[in-house]
Amino acid sequence: MSILVVGSVAFDSIETPTGRRNRCLGGAATYFALSASYFTDVRVIGVVGEDFTPEHEAVLTRRGVDTRGLEHTSGKSFHWTGSYVKSLNEAHTIDTELNVFETFAPKVPAVYQDSEFLFLANIDPVLQKSVREQMPKARMVCGDTMNYWITGHRDNLAKVLTGLDALLINDGEAKLLADNSNLVLAARKVLSMGPKALIVKHGEYGATAFFGEHAFSGTGRVSTPFRAPAWPLEEVVDPTGAGDSFAGGFFGYLASKPEVNLKNFKHAMFYGGVMGSFAVERFGTERMQSLTREEIDQRFALFRELSHLD
Amino acid sequence: MSILVVGSVAFDSIETPTGRRNRCLGGAATYFALSASYFTDVRVIGVVGEDFTPEHEAVLTRRGVDTRGLEHTSGKSFHWTGSYVKSLNEAHTIDTELNVFETFAPKVPAVYQDSEFLFLANIDPVLQKSVREQMPKARMVCGDTMNYWITGHRDNLAKVLTGLDALLINDGEAKLLADNSNLVLAARKVLSMGPKALIVKHGEYGATAFFGEHAFSGTGRVSTPFRAPAWPLEEVVDPTGAGDSFAGGFFGYLASKPEVNLKNFKHAMFYGGVMGSFAVERFGTERMQSLTREEIDQRFALFRELSHLD
Repeated sequence: MSILVVGSVAFDSIETPTGRRNRCLGGAATYFALSASYFTDVRVIGVVGEDFTPEHEAVLTRRGVDTRGLEHTSGKSFHWTGSYVKSLNEAHTIDTELNVFETFAPKVPAVYQDSEFLFLANIDPVLQKSVREQMPKARMVCGDTMNYWITGHRDNLAKVLTGLDALLINDGEAKLLADNSNLVLAARKVLSMGPKALIVKHGEYGATAFFGEHAFSGTGRVSTPFRAPAWPLEEVVDPTGAGDSFAGGFFGYLASKPEVNLKNFKHAMFYGGVMGSFAVERFGTERMQSLTREEIDQRFALFRELSHLD
Repeated sequence: MSILVVGSVAFDSIETPTGRRNRCLGGAATYFALSASYFTDVRVIGVVGEDFTPEHEAVLTRRGVDTRGLEHTSGKSFHWTGSYVKSLNEAHTIDTELNVFETFAPKVPAVYQDSEFLFLANIDPVLQKSVREQMPKARMVCGDTMNYWITGHRDNLAKVLTGLDALLINDGEAKLLADNSNLVLAARKVLSMGPKALIVKHGEYGATAFFGEHAFSGTGRVSTPFRAPAWPLEEVVDPTGAGDSFAGGFFGYLASKPEVNLKNFKHAMFYGGVMGSFAVERFGTERMQSLTREEIDQRFALFRELSHLD
């Protein structure tokens, strides 16, 4: 099944303990699309400026990503400058230039209307809601957000949360959204805001899924959370996009299966962890461009060996 | 098989967001012994003062723990005062009164000599080494340590590490011991110091075991690490003793099996997590005193459901 993703296609200038890169291709939608492309068809909606060249677009199209929903406009693309020199676990934003994103009004092309899976990457919840409303027939909708929208745009965000099958955020975001420092209580509060499931990403410690009453409707309440590990890595070159790559692996795998059930959801969590672990091995989207499904499945097997008793 | 544990039997005065307790029974050896007692026979070596009453000793003996190695001496027992009010993830030590521990010279009673499993809880590495040397026939030796010994008594600690089958420490301790902030590289460095296996405890995120070349001798190199989850808890009443209870569950389970192999080691990691998750549900050793093996196995089943795909 096709996934439609809306989010940022951007340039990142990144400094990490390993080195630095200027204006490499990034953005949540880019990482998500590349990651999900190993599992299913992906279509992308976003906006780019004149600095976004055919070579940049080819990074996506080479992986089979449909870029017809990418709006080219005058001006510069979104540009994020950040550093992980102090801590690989947390991005320190040095500068955010919204540029063409400031006036972005996403429009879903007619050829995208039959996408059954919709991912609302981390952008203004007003835009997330607009895209959601243009896709009334979407069968499964997942989304991401960040501290900025949680603290400053809570009412708009609330309207997005009610329509989500799963929200994917990190520990700090979940605790901030729920205003509770206990993960379980925070998860319960977030689930009460609407999403049927909540996936909390713990960085190097993996991710935990919590399920609301209406997850997997018709199959009864799932009360036990599920935790997927992350792979212990010798070197994290660049953490940028790890969460988006996780989301791409998770949702891409789910969209590739005939049914969204608990078993497939659990496997999807593992594939999310696998894709996140690859993403951080190189700068930018480098690793996400060059994988093979065989490499992915080999690491999936390692994740199983890492965490399973038998 | 019998486990012999040497370590502190102490009183703890604890403040957490839930409340406070003055001088409740604690100490690494106490938590370890109570936890391991659900799996196998446990013998304890330690020193206590005149404030340690028969009622305190009964907490151990009621669980079948052999306390003949507990030295009663004049003066006061070891007393630790700490707070978790700022963070449940890290103990803030307010005061440490070593008292009778200052002149402690552990002697292994003749009746303990046939213990095949030896646990060196977190005490002065000089004492750990002395006990190790008094138990030349011990089949498996595991140990713990802490920042204080890592920074100030590194040479003495090095002599203990060379004789360990497994070292159990937390993330911060592993990174400090190896002087490396990457978990995998830190683990490799620690393994090069002697222990055949290293278990790194991640608090609410579980624990990861790394294996050296000589782990499970004769069965070939185990190159994949193993990660056991922790249970996502709604309330952490008192984190004191979680690590020692983990160690007790881990080592207790292993000692109860006919063979120390990779399969049993992995199950032992899960039982460690299970016992750690119980320990923090009540103040002090309260929860560790009142469990049943049925409750333990029920939670073990939950740990499996939390982390397994099938």
